[in-house]
Amino acid sequence: MTEFELIARLTKNLPTNDHLVVGPGDDCAVLDFRGSQLLFKTDAIVEDVHFTAETPPEKIGRKALARNLSDIAAMAGTPTAALVTIGLPKNFDAARIEAIYSGINALARQHNVAIAGGETTSAPKMFISVALLGTTTKAIRRNGAKVGDAIFVTGTLGGSLLGWHLDFEPRLAEARWLAEKFSIHAMIDLSDGLAGDLRHILTASGVGAELLGSAIPISRIAKALAREESSAKPPLLAALTDGEDFELLFTVASKDAVPLADAWKKQFPDLKLSCIGKITADKSVRLRDKNGFKPVPQHGYTHFGQS
Amino acid sequence: MTEFELIARLTKNLPTNDHLVVGPGDDCAVLDFRGSQLLFKTDAIVEDVHFTAETPPEKIGRKALARNLSDIAAMAGTPTAALVTIGLPKNFDAARIEAIYSGINALARQHNVAIAGGETTSAPKMFISVALLGTTTKAIRRNGAKVGDAIFVTGTLGGSLLGWHLDFEPRLAEARWLAEKFSIHAMIDLSDGLAGDLRHILTASGVGAELLGSAIPISRIAKALAREESSAKPPLLAALTDGEDFELLFTVASKDAVPLADAWKKQFPDLKLSCIGKITADKSVRLRDKNGFKPVPQHGYTHFGQS
Repeated sequence: MTEFELIARLTKNLPTNDHLVVGPGDDCAVLDFRGSQLLFKTDAIVEDVHFTAETPPEKIGRKALARNLSDIAAMAGTPTAALVTIGLPKNFDAARIEAIYSGINALARQHNVAIAGGETTSAPKMFISVALLGTTTKAIRRNGAKVGDAIFVTGTLGGSLLGWHLDFEPRLAEARWLAEKFSIHAMIDLSDGLAGDLRHILTASGVGAELLGSAIPISRIAKALAREESSAKPPLLAALTDGEDFELLFTVASKDAVPLADAWKKQFPDLKLSCIGKITADKSVRLRDKNGFKPVPQHGYTHFGQS
Repeated sequence: MTEFELIARLTKNLPTNDHLVVGPGDDCAVLDFRGSQLLFKTDAIVEDVHFTAETPPEKIGRKALARNLSDIAAMAGTPTAALVTIGLPKNFDAARIEAIYSGINALARQHNVAIAGGETTSAPKMFISVALLGTTTKAIRRNGAKVGDAIFVTGTLGGSLLGWHLDFEPRLAEARWLAEKFSIHAMIDLSDGLAGDLRHILTASGVGAELLGSAIPISRIAKALAREESSAKPPLLAALTDGEDFELLFTVASKDAVPLADAWKKQFPDLKLSCIGKITADKSVRLRDKNGFKPVPQHGYTHFGQS
C-alpha cells in the first residue's frame, strides 16, 4: 500500500461534529466557533527528509513555521498562534535547538504570531512539528474552480531545493488582498509542484485544465541549472514538477482576469503574477506549446505529506 | 544542559500577541477569540519511549489522544477538534496504522471530538503527535493555589505503567463539574507523578504543601507489586512518584473541602476523591506520617515533555 492509499483509507469516516466546516483534504481544517471561522493546521519536518545536519538551524526553524503559514495563506487567513513540538535525539546540541527557535521566533514576530508553547520529546532523529491556529473571514477552498476560470500563479517556479525552500515568503498579505478584492474560486499553495497541486484543485472541483507552456513562470535558478548541468531537468519541466515553491495557485472567473492582473501590478509591483491557462470541462490536464498539446506529467515532487 | 534547562531557555521571550492569554507553562495554552477562550495543546508519543512494538495499536492511538484530552480536562475545558500527525518508518504496516487510527477515532467519538485532518511524514521511528483545540468558560490554571487550601486528588495512584497508562479515562466531565460547582483555585493532571506535578502547582503559585501519607490513595496494582516483587517501590513511594496516572490534582479553599467531598460522592460515586493535604506558606513539600514529617522525593517520573 502506498502512503496515498493509506491516507485515503485513514481519512474515510473520521469522527466529526457541529464545529467542523472543512475536514481533511484542503490546506487547513476550518472550524466554526460562534460564527467565526478558525483555521487549524499541522505540518512536520524531519531531519534527513526536509533538512540535513548542514542546514543552518535558523533556516530549519523558519521553514517549519513558514510551511504552515503558507497553508494559512492558501485559505486567505491570518495566523494567530502556534505550538512547537521538537523531537530531540539523545545527544542534542542545545545551541542548535536555540538557533532553530530563533528562526521560528523571528518569522512569528514578522507575522504577529504568538508561540503559545509546545513540548520537547525524545526521538531517534530530530523532527519539528508545528500546529498553527488562524482566522479567516472567507476561507478559499480547493473545490471551487469553474469551467472557463483563468488560472493564476504568483512568483516563479522550479529549482526551489537549491535554496528557496528555506527562504520563501508565505504569501499571506497577497492571499488576503486577493480574497478581499476579488471572487477567488479556488486556491492552494504550491508544495508538491505546480502539476501536482493543480491536480488537487482539479480533482476537488471535478474539472480539468489547459496550460499555456510559454506562460508558465520559470525561476532563474531552474533556467541556470538547465544551462549548467546536462543532467538537470528542462526548465519548463522543473517549473511544473519541482516541489516547495510555496507560491499561490488560484482561479477566478475569466471576466475578472484582466482587472485582477492590473490591480495586482499596482498592489504588488515586485511579485510576478502569471495567468497560465484556463479551467476546462474535459478532466484531463493538457499543456499547449507551439507544437500543439501534450499531457502534463502526472505528479510533481511527491512528498510524503497529506496536503 | 538538561532538557529542563533547555526548555527554560527556549520558552523565555517567545513571541506573543493580543490573543494569547496563557502561554507556555500550563496544561494548555489559552487564547482569546472575540471573548471566547480557546484551549490549544499538542502532545507527541514516540515508539520505544511511550509505547513499544508489542503495544496493541488501538491502545497506542487511544493514548495519543487521551493524553491531550487529559490536559484539556486539567483546564476544565471541552475538546473540539484534533489534528493527527503520524511519522511513519519506511516499511510501515498499514493494518497497524489503521488500528492506531481506530483507537484514536473511538475515543474521539466518545468525547465528540472531530478529527479535522493531519498528515503523515516519513520518520525513522513511528511517532504520533496530536494537536487539540478546545473551549472553556473558566480556565483553571496552575498558579492559583492559596495558603490553607485543601489538596484533592481523584482516583488511585501508582503502577500505571503496568496498564493504566493505556486505558485511563481523561477526567473531562469531572473537571467541568468541579469548575462549575466550586471555586477551584489550581488544577493539573498527573502525568509526571503526584510529587512532581504537585510541585508544578506549588512553584507556579509560590506556596508549599503538607501531605498526609495515610490519605494518599494507592492503587491496587502498586500494592500488589510491592507484595509480589521485593525490588518494587514501596506502595506509597509508587503513588507519589510513578508517572502517567492522568488523575486530577486540585486545590480549593478549606471551607469548601467538606461540601465538595460530599457533593462529589453523590455525583461520581464510582470514582474515589481524596483530600491528601493542605497548602502552606512554607515553600517546602513535607509528608506527615505516624513518625512525623519527611521530605517528599524531589521528582516523580521525569518524562522528557514540557508539561
